[in-house]
Amino acid sequence: MKIGLFGFGCVGQGLYHVLNNSTGFRADIVRIAVKHRHKPRSVSADLITYNKWEILNDPEINVVVELIDDADEAYSIVSEAIKKGKHVVTANKKLLALHLETLYQLQQEHNVSLLYEAAACGSIPIIRSLEEYFDNEELEKVSGIFNGTTNYILSKTIKERLSYGDALKQAQEKGFAETDPTNDVEGFDPKFKAIIIALHAFGIIIRPEDVLNIGITTLHDNDIRYASEKGYRIKLTPVIRRLSGNRISVFVVPGFVKETSHLYNVDNEFNGVIVEGKFSGEQFLQGKGAGSYPTGAAVLSDVSALSHGYKYEFKKYVQQQKPVLTNNVLVKVYLRYNTREDLERLPFSEVSESYTGHHYHYVVGTINLQTLLAQREYILKHKLFVALAGEYVAAADETTGTLADAKALEKISLIHP
Amino acid sequence: MKIGLFGFGCVGQGLYHVLNNSTGFRADIVRIAVKHRHKPRSVSADLITYNKWEILNDPEINVVVELIDDADEAYSIVSEAIKKGKHVVTANKKLLALHLETLYQLQQEHNVSLLYEAAACGSIPIIRSLEEYFDNEELEKVSGIFNGTTNYILSKTIKERLSYGDALKQAQEKGFAETDPTNDVEGFDPKFKAIIIALHAFGIIIRPEDVLNIGITTLHDNDIRYASEKGYRIKLTPVIRRLSGNRISVFVVPGFVKETSHLYNVDNEFNGVIVEGKFSGEQFLQGKGAGSYPTGAAVLSDVSALSHGYKYEFKKYVQQQKPVLTNNVLVKVYLRYNTREDLERLPFSEVSESYTGHHYHYVVGTINLQTLLAQREYILKHKLFVALAGEYVAAADETTGTLADAKALEKISLIHP
Repeated sequence: MKIGLFGFGCVGQGLYHVLNNSTGFRADIVRIAVKHRHKPRSVSADLITYNKWEILNDPEINVVVELIDDADEAYSIVSEAIKKGKHVVTANKKLLALHLETLYQLQQEHNVSLLYEAAACGSIPIIRSLEEYFDNEELEKVSGIFNGTTNYILSKTIKERLSYGDALKQAQEKGFAETDPTNDVEGFDPKFKAIIIALHAFGIIIRPEDVLNIGITTLHDNDIRYASEKGYRIKLTPVIRRLSGNRISVFVVPGFVKETSHLYNVDNEFNGVIVEGKFSGEQFLQGKGAGSYPTGAAVLSDVSALSHGYKYEFKKYVQQQKPVLTNNVLVKVYLRYNTREDLERLPFSEVSESYTGHHYHYVVGTINLQTLLAQREYILKHKLFVALAGEYVAAADETTGTLADAKALEKISLIHP
Repeated sequence: MKIGLFGFGCVGQGLYHVLNNSTGFRADIVRIAVKHRHKPRSVSADLITYNKWEILNDPEINVVVELIDDADEAYSIVSEAIKKGKHVVTANKKLLALHLETLYQLQQEHNVSLLYEAAACGSIPIIRSLEEYFDNEELEKVSGIFNGTTNYILSKTIKERLSYGDALKQAQEKGFAETDPTNDVEGFDPKFKAIIIALHAFGIIIRPEDVLNIGITTLHDNDIRYASEKGYRIKLTPVIRRLSGNRISVFVVPGFVKETSHLYNVDNEFNGVIVEGKFSGEQFLQGKGAGSYPTGAAVLSDVSALSHGYKYEFKKYVQQQKPVLTNNVLVKVYLRYNTREDLERLPFSEVSESYTGHHYHYVVGTINLQTLLAQREYILKHKLFVALAGEYVAAADETTGTLADAKALEKISLIHP
């Protein structure tokens, strides 16, 4: 296998190291395309190129590994590589989430393999497990902690009482967070991963704009205090959940996590994924979600799989009777707010707790996910904090958007157990 | 796919149910061979046969699923099926552990696929992950809880204070334990699984008689009290661990597990597996290790994999430079004993704690694994209890069997973290 590598940052260097220290697997990185001419590189200058066509047009190179930041440029590289009949491995979740449909079609047309295990939850083999192991089983839920950066920040701020800024800086120094952390801290990165996972777990391709993502940028000390008084930890917990009527709900919102949850002790850069199957029950997978070597090892496992002719078969995607995404769902949340207007903009269909104090106010109750999606900008702009506060999510009445009948409430455990 | 099924007990019926309720996967069980003529069966009598040759000689049947208890009979069925060019799925860990080498050769010769995901840790896709994901990475350790029956008994006796007998009875009623529970409670079953896992994780085939297995039959209230005073739980924890000099140590002994361990909260019929890779770091997988549907779902995932032409490639087994099993290892254990003779039979190379009381006596210290292996019968006969008590295991000097040099002690964390 002759590999052309795009990008030689944290993950690229990790791959290079892991590959060169792998026993029992041989593949050669024959060329590395990078952007910046003046950065010092730890590899021989012969390997380096600044011209992507030197890889894309090289007939000797049969595998392209794409590990750059820029999703648009990555799309042009990946689609060009596929059209030239090269297999592709990528860790770029944004690229994938934005172009799943096109990339699926392209790789079918050109009969190459596009693998991306490292794009979802670092070293946890979640895509592989969904494709190869849970392929014939109806799944009820996939949820967890999909983002190492925010989990690192939350662990350090909540458990070690570091300031948000210091925790972010540490995460960047350790190579877990990008220089621009927006994708992580605003919850875009775990949303992209949830979209990729939804394809393999439920067979549907979802548009990013249809999925709510609220990150951790508005987290305040008061929220941390509230959570710890109740014995909860705060984690950024994407949820992909089957509802009645062959519907699926997907959202990324911080969540209060109880001590009994698998996710409670998933700390720092670790990720955790809960997969609930109709027959196999609840599975839990944990591993490092970020970092040079763990992500490099995940990329290498894809390269190795290519050498055995492996290709995703998208088994659930090619099935009939696929579920449909809905946001018309009632979720139980905690909302820390400031003004009466906040509550008018975010009407609750039911309030179970309400607190007003000198320092902060909150309500806990059920609200329609559509409302949160519509008011996302407002929530961020006014620094409100939203967290999943309970264990129930319910499909709302399709026409009214409210709970038509209290008895119809689907009691679904959102967070284990 | 036309399936001939051997055995229609707990797992067989689970498979039948899961298969018939699977969306998106079609395979037919065309014949079921059973032993007892007078048991009532929940399926049409047309399907049932009492003659194994009606399956083995049927050219229409291309897949044999073997789910019977008897390992000898299972060996004859599985090897015959392979010779007749049929693919085989089995959940029989004893069969596999006793005949790995032969079965490997047979399936190579006859160019069929032999899959056995359900034989190790129920619904956790551990074999698949080792084969397909960790295939190119050097692993440091695989450990965990591999047996649902003993874990159920330990959870119920330690957390809910049930008697051993009541807990075992419950496990049997729920279909987790066999009528004869010896294989489980004496630690043979997790040993067989450790042997299967060692093949895929480290590429070596180990003889069962070379691996120490001490189960939970001699566990006493005093041991439970000791553990809970220290804040430990007791779990049956097989360990497969790489040591210096390309050596591997494998043993199955109860272990004291700390609150910070992944395994601490793995309760009842759940299993948990920790996989530590050189680059990917520590992975943790948890899922149901026993039960009709979870195990049936694992069998079905193999049948489904067969329909896509899947075959284990035994990637680490076919490599050069495979590690070698050693029992010349010092382990830190807790030993509850009765008499002076016990201590003479089980000489410790170092004692860090020693307690003598009216009700019981114990020592904590390091002992050579070879000694424990040689004295296994003595330990069981005299109802001594042995548990891994610390976090260190060390390779002993090859000639003397003791720690030649204290500085040479390999400080290896046995149980996370």
